[in-house]
Amino acid sequence: MIKSRDPILVLTTGGTIDKLYFDALSEYRIGESILARVLDAARVTHPVEIVELLRKDSLDLDDADRALIVERVAAAPGRPVVITHGTDTMTQTAAALAPLAQDRAVVLVGALAPARFAESDAPFNLGMAFATAQIAPPGVYITMNGTVFRAAEVVKDRAQGAFVAMP
Amino acid sequence: MIKSRDPILVLTTGGTIDKLYFDALSEYRIGESILARVLDAARVTHPVEIVELLRKDSLDLDDADRALIVERVAAAPGRPVVITHGTDTMTQTAAALAPLAQDRAVVLVGALAPARFAESDAPFNLGMAFATAQIAPPGVYITMNGTVFRAAEVVKDRAQGAFVAMP
Amino acid sequence: MIKSRDPILVLTTGGTIDKLYFDALSEYRIGESILARVLDAARVTHPVEIVELLRKDSLDLDDADRALIVERVAAAPGRPVVITHGTDTMTQTAAALAPLAQDRAVVLVGALAPARFAESDAPFNLGMAFATAQIAPPGVYITMNGTVFRAAEVVKDRAQGAFVAMP
Amino acid sequence: MIKSRDPILVLTTGGTIDKLYFDALSEYRIGESILARVLDAARVTHPVEIVELLRKDSLDLDDADRALIVERVAAAPGRPVVITHGTDTMTQTAAALAPLAQDRAVVLVGALAPARFAESDAPFNLGMAFATAQIAPPGVYITMNGTVFRAAEVVKDRAQGAFVAMP
Repeated sequence: MIKSRDPILVLTTGGTIDKLYFDALSEYRIGESILARVLDAARVTHPVEIVELLRKDSLDLDDADRALIVERVAAAPGRPVVITHGTDTMTQTAAALAPLAQDRAVVLVGALAPARFAESDAPFNLGMAFATAQIAPPGVYITMNGTVFRAAEVVKDRAQGAFVAMP
Repeated sequence: MIKSRDPILVLTTGGTIDKLYFDALSEYRIGESILARVLDAARVTHPVEIVELLRKDSLDLDDADRALIVERVAAAPGRPVVITHGTDTMTQTAAALAPLAQDRAVVLVGALAPARFAESDAPFNLGMAFATAQIAPPGVYITMNGTVFRAAEVVKDRAQGAFVAMP
Repeated sequence: MIKSRDPILVLTTGGTIDKLYFDALSEYRIGESILARVLDAARVTHPVEIVELLRKDSLDLDDADRALIVERVAAAPGRPVVITHGTDTMTQTAAALAPLAQDRAVVLVGALAPARFAESDAPFNLGMAFATAQIAPPGVYITMNGTVFRAAEVVKDRAQGAFVAMP
Repeated sequence: MIKSRDPILVLTTGGTIDKLYFDALSEYRIGESILARVLDAARVTHPVEIVELLRKDSLDLDDADRALIVERVAAAPGRPVVITHGTDTMTQTAAALAPLAQDRAVVLVGALAPARFAESDAPFNLGMAFATAQIAPPGVYITMNGTVFRAAEVVKDRAQGAFVAMP
């Protein structure tokens, strides 16, 4: 695409995608972002700038956290952005980013199974996000369950465990 | 996207992405397409129609094979298409498909490591292909190495083991 | 080994080895045993009988549960046994099984990372357990962290996240 | 076991277990041994000494290669040994090692699918080998397909793709 060699800004904020398992506590915690490893396995040569911003469950993100995300996106005007994010409040963060997506694509993406699982939706979802960041018209998007959604037109259906277009 | 719920036609033709390893022969062969399994792990709910068309190394594809691919794409006018394909002659098949991509995106995608490997570029590349099929302007695309390329503007650099924009 | 073709009795009781992740609840639960899949990937042709007995965290196993395990082992006199088990109370169950291991090896095994993770100790640990069940002198064993331990001589060091020989 | 804390000598010689895939050549080659990575995922704390000796298909091993393997095993008298090895001539190397296994277990092990595959028998087989090295009576063993075989009593059945006890 015309813009395909623009460097993509990638912000990691936590969520299921980066969850580890700690046997000592028999619980899950968010670990170091696995993003670089996924991009490495995917042999990505496209220029990216990765910033590990937060390590939180998206239910724990507060106003200050969202302000931080907004600030970082605002500080890179015009550049395509991919944000890894917990799925539960993804649409809320997307709404906060809408004013910054007048001239570029901002894509939020996460995973329903941790990327460290043998079978995770993380690499596929990230692939969708990277493509969308490069070629979509300006706007905020969510790429989950095989679909490129406009962020304002999608909801997470917890019972179904999937993102679906708003009725 | 406006067209995001159109069913995607997926044709599998073989290539590294579907390679198996047979110890009895100490060699690689192209097996049953692993595509359905990748889409399953990715929890894709987007409507797709998968057709296993060929199981060939792309260096072994002949004129009849390309005619078959073209025929199948022509038989589904206006629908977005993803084609899994060996990487060596991907651009050649792309050229044959250009006349059929006046009103939709046709995306060719493969992998540099078999999808059955623990670390493969296949799921990420397929994610890019699915997003591109949904949102790109009409045309033929190749989604490899983290980039959405217009098929007419990319070459495989065998020494580097990566697709690069034509100079 | 002399006894190598005796069918191995495999009991699954739960524990980290079989944990799934449910995004809808952001939590871990013990799922259907992944044992058959691990044995399949390992191309095991050795005769086995698999019984899914329980699906519990080992901290939740009560006296009735242990009585059930003991009963099943007692019902298969002389046969080598492998038991998949949460790691926290493995040595306690091992003690209850000591009287039944006068003429065969009984091996307890688990994992510190769920078998569904891309990187788990589960397949390696299960391989150790299968070998031990076939060739060890009578007794109760625990195979974790690369070592075959006599069950009465090992403790789980939670801080270290590893089984270590008792001082 | 009594000898369970003896350091295990691990020699890598190549074979399917260490095969990589090079797309640029559409072929398989034996790469850097993946052994350390498997032991790491398995959280092995047992003392080991790993020596990368050869990187050959076992059909390509010649007399000089076997002499080298024998020499290294002879140089570590009394220590348990695990040797990763291609499966086609494993029994031949085993025969050459018999005189050195009077007072310890020497275990040959390989894989029918490369360890780099998402589904490989490598971790399970290596787990069996580690347990066998620790607890088996003196002798030469092969641990494949879920069974601990005495090396002199097993053959690889290429058609079946499995090791089977000699009739």
